[in-house]
Amino acid sequence: MPPVFDPPARVGQTIHEVDTPALLIDLDAFERNLATLPRALATLAHPIKVRNHAKTHKSPEIARRQIAAGAVGVCCQKVAEAEVLVQGGVRDVLISNEVVGATKLARLAQLAGQARLGICVDAIEQIYALAEATQAAGTSIDVYVEIDVGAQRCGVVPGRAALVLAQAIVAQPSLRFNGLQAYHGPAQHERTIEARQARIDRAIAAARMTRDLIQSAGIDCPEVMGAGSGSFMFEAASGVYTEIQPGSYIFMDVDYAKNAWTAPQPTFEHALFVLATVMSRPTPQRLVLDTGLKALSVDSGLPRVWQREGVHFTKISDEHGVCDIDAGVSAPALGEKIQLIPGHCDPTVNLYDWYVCVRGGVVEAVWPILARGAFY
Amino acid sequence: MPPVFDPPARVGQTIHEVDTPALLIDLDAFERNLATLPRALATLAHPIKVRNHAKTHKSPEIARRQIAAGAVGVCCQKVAEAEVLVQGGVRDVLISNEVVGATKLARLAQLAGQARLGICVDAIEQIYALAEATQAAGTSIDVYVEIDVGAQRCGVVPGRAALVLAQAIVAQPSLRFNGLQAYHGPAQHERTIEARQARIDRAIAAARMTRDLIQSAGIDCPEVMGAGSGSFMFEAASGVYTEIQPGSYIFMDVDYAKNAWTAPQPTFEHALFVLATVMSRPTPQRLVLDTGLKALSVDSGLPRVWQREGVHFTKISDEHGVCDIDAGVSAPALGEKIQLIPGHCDPTVNLYDWYVCVRGGVVEAVWPILARGAFY
Repeated sequence: MPPVFDPPARVGQTIHEVDTPALLIDLDAFERNLATLPRALATLAHPIKVRNHAKTHKSPEIARRQIAAGAVGVCCQKVAEAEVLVQGGVRDVLISNEVVGATKLARLAQLAGQARLGICVDAIEQIYALAEATQAAGTSIDVYVEIDVGAQRCGVVPGRAALVLAQAIVAQPSLRFNGLQAYHGPAQHERTIEARQARIDRAIAAARMTRDLIQSAGIDCPEVMGAGSGSFMFEAASGVYTEIQPGSYIFMDVDYAKNAWTAPQPTFEHALFVLATVMSRPTPQRLVLDTGLKALSVDSGLPRVWQREGVHFTKISDEHGVCDIDAGVSAPALGEKIQLIPGHCDPTVNLYDWYVCVRGGVVEAVWPILARGAFY
Repeated sequence: MPPVFDPPARVGQTIHEVDTPALLIDLDAFERNLATLPRALATLAHPIKVRNHAKTHKSPEIARRQIAAGAVGVCCQKVAEAEVLVQGGVRDVLISNEVVGATKLARLAQLAGQARLGICVDAIEQIYALAEATQAAGTSIDVYVEIDVGAQRCGVVPGRAALVLAQAIVAQPSLRFNGLQAYHGPAQHERTIEARQARIDRAIAAARMTRDLIQSAGIDCPEVMGAGSGSFMFEAASGVYTEIQPGSYIFMDVDYAKNAWTAPQPTFEHALFVLATVMSRPTPQRLVLDTGLKALSVDSGLPRVWQREGVHFTKISDEHGVCDIDAGVSAPALGEKIQLIPGHCDPTVNLYDWYVCVRGGVVEAVWPILARGAFY
């Protein structure tokens, strides 16, 4: 499945020769982020499994590096992403999400014959449809009940509703009940560590209560999964969660950087950048970059200019990014390249076909973003 | 250049069989929009040329239909888009934007040998680089000076600065000075017709003054171009503008629908939808769709639910759209399909590989979005 357009760079080029817009990975920062996660977890009293979220990067190349750094596998959100990951050599993939629709379920059931696959449910109809699809394909799949631990998105109310679903899963020979999915998304972006801890403490309590209820009904509940880049040390230390799912930690973005990165959370570095070219210098106080809404997702705010004092990204339209320049600042010239930190990494990555991986200002590798657009 | 993923539908399927997320074109509404534009312009005293903006749809299929409806050609914003359009059979393409960088200019100069091409400039360095690239390729290109008529993005100050650039273009044998680009983006989204008219009146005055200055210096200035879907009747009636560039009118989105569509602007219909599936029904007052930030651009606000009274799109994350359901409303069931009007059509289109074209609820065609990701 090759991307449509040629890569904007070749190995050995300098960063100044890269065509723009380009999505850069700073390999040194990226590799430090990869290593920081297991190092932080090694300080805990109990071991915890890591299953990094591939929805952030959409790349089997990166998934393989996360597994080499200790992850048991990866998770993703869509069947089409799982297909790309399995085809890219990942042997253990969890879709940490519900999947609805006969076409998707048939593909999922097929894929379950090629790798260890997991999936979440929050309704009895999903369980019946999943059982039917896997029986038709002659495969089996791990199933997790998603509980809503405060995010108010998917998931059943913790407690009795989850037990009912667990019982329904256990009754299906092609499904293996393997535990709970208990992820709290909004908690990741609470700015203070105290606010994050307070929300995660409630999530832990809800997950513990639900797990105990299921086990007291005689059903084994091996795994409790969840946690993101903003909070994972709390879940990891809880004694309740058994697997954590951080994704954004490898890249960091402007939104995550607004968090206070206070202990026990380790600090990660910006490793993902959008490379832009100054395409217009209409006034001394304004420059225009060739990166707009089709090269940067602004759902969580505008990008930030990297290491250019006095240059501020202030306005974006479809193909343009406008920056204001402080008075007295030596302004970037027409044709100069500027690095931007994306406001939100996940949907920005999904706009690109290629990662341009640089080290010390030189292109070391170009990786295809094979699951770009894999939203089925 | 085939898209990466298979289309989510086959011709002859009903809308209920289409896999999701899918980008739908309602062909009846789309064709009415196509026809409304020339019908409105026919009421004017003077003829005006139409050059529709292909940055909206990124599809040679649609460009050909616009030309069949009377357009002289199309415009786009990027060299890679122009390549796709020319390869798709469009013979007259304007890049209504500045292009900076040797790689891009070499491709542009090459492409100028295959079709009539135009380009904008707002700096002398761009003119020299363009002259060098076209001379090296042995081609020639139409060049327009972009003036800033109020948008505060690219473009020189109207008047003398534009004349200086026109003189520099005329001095280059491989460049043809063909007029002015004078587009006012923010004016398109002024909610009242009076506010739009006031801003466009100032744009018209600036364009007229600049054109007259250039002509009084003995340089022919054949075209004055600009205008979008919100304001084009004003530019078209001005006697100054010679070509208009509406793009969004074929699709309409939530943001444009917030405009008052008052005379003289004609009214357009919503013709572009994102088809979503209800993937979770966690509470009676909440449903979750399988369409998040990777399937909908929210830069101009959230999408709107189409023809489902009492269901409100209220929250979005990477792969999920959360809707609140009013009390007493018969709620859509798990697996039901819901149509959404995107908040902003251009960056939403850029997330998809395919248009699924439907008429009366049946898939009539599937068109590849060949310039998806063509941001170089």
